[in-house]
Parts: sequence; structure tokens; C-alpha cells
Amino acid sequence: MIYIVGIGPGDKDYLTLKAIKIVENADLVVGSKRALELFNIDKDKKIILTKNLIDELKELIKNKDIKNKKIVILSTGDPCFSGLLKTLLKIGAKKEDIEVISGISSIQIAAAKLKISWEDYNIITLHGKSENKEKLLNLIKNHEKVIFLPNNLKEDAKFLIDNGINPNTKIWVLENLTYSNEKISLKSLKEIIKEDFSYLTVCIYRGEDD
Amino acid sequence: MIYIVGIGPGDKDYLTLKAIKIVENADLVVGSKRALELFNIDKDKKIILTKNLIDELKELIKNKDIKNKKIVILSTGDPCFSGLLKTLLKIGAKKEDIEVISGISSIQIAAAKLKISWEDYNIITLHGKSENKEKLLNLIKNHEKVIFLPNNLKEDAKFLIDNGINPNTKIWVLENLTYSNEKISLKSLKEIIKEDFSYLTVCIYRGEDD
Repeated sequence: MIYIVGIGPGDKDYLTLKAIKIVENADLVVGSKRALELFNIDKDKKIILTKNLIDELKELIKNKDIKNKKIVILSTGDPCFSGLLKTLLKIGAKKEDIEVISGISSIQIAAAKLKISWEDYNIITLHGKSENKEKLLNLIKNHEKVIFLPNNLKEDAKFLIDNGINPNTKIWVLENLTYSNEKISLKSLKEIIKEDFSYLTVCIYRGEDD
Repeated sequence: MIYIVGIGPGDKDYLTLKAIKIVENADLVVGSKRALELFNIDKDKKIILTKNLIDELKELIKNKDIKNKKIVILSTGDPCFSGLLKTLLKIGAKKEDIEVISGISSIQIAAAKLKISWEDYNIITLHGKSENKEKLLNLIKNHEKVIFLPNNLKEDAKFLIDNGINPNTKIWVLENLTYSNEKISLKSLKEIIKEDFSYLTVCIYRGEDD
């Protein structure tokens, strides 16, 4: 069985007891270096994923004895939000071979930091989804509240300005949430296009509230 | 300080280490009987909320020595999704007195069970939000994917049929997720209006996929 285990935003304290237990009982644990460091795992029981992770995961679901082994794949945040579940299904993993363990998404941490309820927000990810850029544009045009994962925030902000959004429009930028270099700031689009941001960034547009 | 701590869907295994630590260090822990049972808390350090919880929470934020004490309020699921954050702000708690600790929402568990990615879904709650019934109706009319928390599923389904949705439309009904009486079934609207369901229910409409 493949267990896709959500490890939350990065801080060990956001691990669930279930994630810890499943990793403890696994035959093999696969994940990024950063993800694996959250757990105590014997050297011979772990595989570090690299930037070539699609091929590495393909290899894994093809070769490993999935029916008889407990294989854990660690997924940052929640595997069901912009996480590894979709990736695995896309490369051919079978639903019946998979169990998914939910984790805290960075979207939730962002909402907690700003003390807002995400049921009131549109939620979209631009990670590798260019069609969602148009969706984001229309939401901001209509002053609708939205939480989004940028693809490249600088370029995304430029796209918004180029398509008619007021450059003074303010966006909350939440970087590296729960890490020691966490940074939360309210910035206008014209400020954003002059800066570079962490890949681990969540953005919140609060309609006309800011 | 008031810590609004998400306790996840109900099963203790979905607690985060952070939730456990904050409860351990609290001066006072407030929550439903079911929520309090997930932790070991001294008798004199806990208050059980009843059905009259709005008045009880009002009393709490008015009378307790918030600045100097660590008061924990336990919230099922994620405090930022159809949770106690909104309730507390509504009754007058100040944002600067509050810290929110995210928890796993039942929405996430539902997505994990069906192995779907919730970034592809509209997410709405009908809990005390009658305007969202219209929104749900329009989404299903347009065959758009939606995850929703029903208010009263039987009545909500009747509303959909009465407003032109095909009674054969299928909905996934996920009850009491992570509890021993968990039940997951795919039902047509015409079946749903003949049954009663748990208050702890999440529904998923997968567009035309079912």
C-alpha cells in the first residue's frame, strides 16, 4: 500500500499523530530532504526525492512490491491540495493502492495568521496552472476575496497590472509560513513586481478590506 | 491570550503536536464534552460548553483575565473553516487577543477518502448560511464540482429537487468521518430525501463523474 502522508507546512509541530505513526510503521519512506528531516527514520528505510521526482515516483510505483509493503510518500501541506495525490494519479498509481492522510495546508496557516475564515474566500493555485491566472484576474477585478498560491509572484503581479488591475491594489504576502524565516507583509502590486519572493508563498486578497 | 485550537475531525490521531502542547500548557481549556475527551486535562482546568455556547463564550471573553492567562478554546476541524474563529470575532473578541492553531477539516478528510484534490472543487458551507443554498443550486445546475457541508441534508436535497435539479443526480455522503460509525455512500437526491443523516456530514458532488 502507498500512504501519501501530509506533513503540514514545514514545522514539525504541525504533524498529526497519525502521520507520525504511519511513518514509524513504514517499510519505506520517500520524500524531499526537508520532509524526511521531520522524522527519525533509519537510513536504509528512506529515499530522498530530487528535482527529478516525477521519474523517481514512476520508478517507485512500477518496481516496488506495493501490495505487500507499506510505502510512505511524504507530501508538504495537504496531499489533496496542490499536493502529491494528483501527481501520483497522473503518473498511473491506482486509487485502490493508495491511502491518503490529510495534513495542514499552508492555506490554512495563512488564514489562521490573518484570522480570517477561508469559507469566505475563493481558493486557487497557480502552481503549474496557467488557466487559473485568468480566474485570479477576474476575481480581483470583481473585488472578490481570494487566497492563492502564486506560481511566480513577481510575474503573476505583472500579469495582473498588465491586464488592468490597479497597481495600488494590496495583497497580503505570507512567505515561509511556520519556518524561522517566516515573513508576513501587506504589499501593493507595484511593490511586488520589484521584489523576489520565496517559492513557499501564500497570497491573500481581501477584496476591498485592505 | 485566547488560543483557538483546531482539533481535527474527531479522531485523536488527527491532533497536531502543536494542539497537544498548547492544551498541556493552558490555564483553562474550554470545549464540547467530545472535544475535551481527546485530551488529559485536570478537572479544575476545563469548562464544558453546552448548547448555550454563544452566551458561555461571551461570558468567557468578558470575564476572564485574557491578557495574563492562557485560555484554550477547542474547535472541531479547522477554526478557520466553519469554525469557532468567526463566532468569537462576531461576539466581540479582539483579534489581538487571539491566536489560531489550524486543524484538519472534515472537508480534507472527505477529499482524502475519495482521493480527489480539493483545489479542483468549489467549497461551501450551508451551516447557518441560507444564501449559500442558492450558490450550491447554481453550481450543481452547471455541473460544477462542489464539496459542501449541508445544513440539514434531507431538506437541502429537497430544495435542490424543487428547484429543478434532476432527482437522479448523485452525491457522495460522508458521515461521521474518522469515528467508529463512519459511513460513506453514493446516493441520488431522491434517495437522500427519504433518509436522515448525521449532523457530522460532508457531501461531494463530482460534476458528471458519478
